[in-house]
Amino acid sequence: MNRNQLFNLIQKKRSFLCVGLDSDLVKIPAHLLEEEDPVFEFNRQIIDATLDFAVAYKPNYAFYESRGIAGMQSLARTMAYLRTFKGQIFTIADAKRGDIGNTSAQYAKAVFDEKISGFSFDGVTVAPYMGEDSVKPFLDFDGKWAIILALTSNKGSDDFQLFRNEEGRRLFEQVLTRSQQWGTADNIMYVVGATKAEMLSDIRKIVPDHFLLVPGVGAQGGSLQDVARFGMNDHCGLLVNASRSIIFASTGNDFSDKARAEAASMQLEMEALLKNAGLIK
Amino acid sequence: MNRNQLFNLIQKKRSFLCVGLDSDLVKIPAHLLEEEDPVFEFNRQIIDATLDFAVAYKPNYAFYESRGIAGMQSLARTMAYLRTFKGQIFTIADAKRGDIGNTSAQYAKAVFDEKISGFSFDGVTVAPYMGEDSVKPFLDFDGKWAIILALTSNKGSDDFQLFRNEEGRRLFEQVLTRSQQWGTADNIMYVVGATKAEMLSDIRKIVPDHFLLVPGVGAQGGSLQDVARFGMNDHCGLLVNASRSIIFASTGNDFSDKARAEAASMQLEMEALLKNAGLIK
Repeated sequence: MNRNQLFNLIQKKRSFLCVGLDSDLVKIPAHLLEEEDPVFEFNRQIIDATLDFAVAYKPNYAFYESRGIAGMQSLARTMAYLRTFKGQIFTIADAKRGDIGNTSAQYAKAVFDEKISGFSFDGVTVAPYMGEDSVKPFLDFDGKWAIILALTSNKGSDDFQLFRNEEGRRLFEQVLTRSQQWGTADNIMYVVGATKAEMLSDIRKIVPDHFLLVPGVGAQGGSLQDVARFGMNDHCGLLVNASRSIIFASTGNDFSDKARAEAASMQLEMEALLKNAGLIK
Repeated sequence: MNRNQLFNLIQKKRSFLCVGLDSDLVKIPAHLLEEEDPVFEFNRQIIDATLDFAVAYKPNYAFYESRGIAGMQSLARTMAYLRTFKGQIFTIADAKRGDIGNTSAQYAKAVFDEKISGFSFDGVTVAPYMGEDSVKPFLDFDGKWAIILALTSNKGSDDFQLFRNEEGRRLFEQVLTRSQQWGTADNIMYVVGATKAEMLSDIRKIVPDHFLLVPGVGAQGGSLQDVARFGMNDHCGLLVNASRSIIFASTGNDFSDKARAEAASMQLEMEALLKNAGLIK
């Protein structure tokens, strides 16, 4: 899916919501544990319930890998189900991958090359620490996206991302600047945490056109209003992720209804912000 | 496995060799493709052939993930086989993981918690970009190790790892310094590329006691002599990895013999270096 298609989807759904599938087996509703694959069944119902309000879905790999082979099978089934909505959603492998070039090329196949790995996400989150050759293999797939960590939403983001060089440039700014030599606004996005919304202004000076994947709204405390105020561009340029606040809105039998209500509420707020910016009527 | 046990193993095997299992299905000998699980069969024969000369094994996750579920099954079988040599080898999940705290906790289970994931490596490589809470969950497992990227062997390592602050401190030095507050030389190691051997002197000033995992000898061109000269400490403090130069020493029927010969040759060189340093007799 290219940038214009993504923007069209946002306009059509009047939403820039990404639902994070951090589907922890120990948190899903008890009645699902009778299913053959409880986590897939949970994801399927969450996807069905939120599809009208979300433009993107983002399985968090850690929650699948932690269950070993069984977890990867839940992820594979979830991927297959997401593929049935091709064109209606953008899919993100939240895996934070990155290694030397020949190894990153394998990680790229793992998330993008359906024939080899069985997985075919539209984008993957990538850790930039190892530099250019660790990121570039993810950019070799037409229509696929590398979503590079810039300024993350967690407490530890201060440890290195704000490291400042002689000229006052911080590491995350260096990542934004340097990585623009490797790809374009049509195959690179950046992760910027909603908990740092005020810094979106600085970020937009460096990457005015790129899409930003913004976690940290909801359970982590970031404000959607601030994210839109400082981060929105003329293609919207935002995918705002919510995970726990939607998928675990209830852990009872009504979990999918509550998830739908929570997603609908965020979509309404997003619709107002898109209107306000003149991006939809 | 704790630091003393690892040092004892090094003394016993007179080697600090780590064999990297970058077991690419398209590179393994053709005759193995008839096996039910060719990659596992390849790994099994490589492990058997090199066990006398290697203290550690390091499956590179990317080469398994790229084959989807089937690849993860090869990895699980390899893990189970490595476990049969418990106490005789140190095992490393080369996965370069790292995410916000609650997610890293899941990644830690994925590689360390046998009951939940089926995997039980001794250590895992960790990307530091996201800071303290992204690393700490890996340190919560007794006897397990986080092996943090510091200065890597690839070309792109220059892009950010050498980023220098006002005081002249480079990012990789900041990672070495800051991360010592999170754990000890008994549960943290660092990745330092052999292609940067001359910088090992600087690194040893900051982390005199820690083990370093050193990739880049062999196919990537680093020198074992230089690594030992600048990096060895009184516990050896080095695990030097070779992947392609051992496992693909031959791609014919004699691959395991050639791998054994290559590992034996490195062990001999390492034995001389250990003797020279007075660490073995």
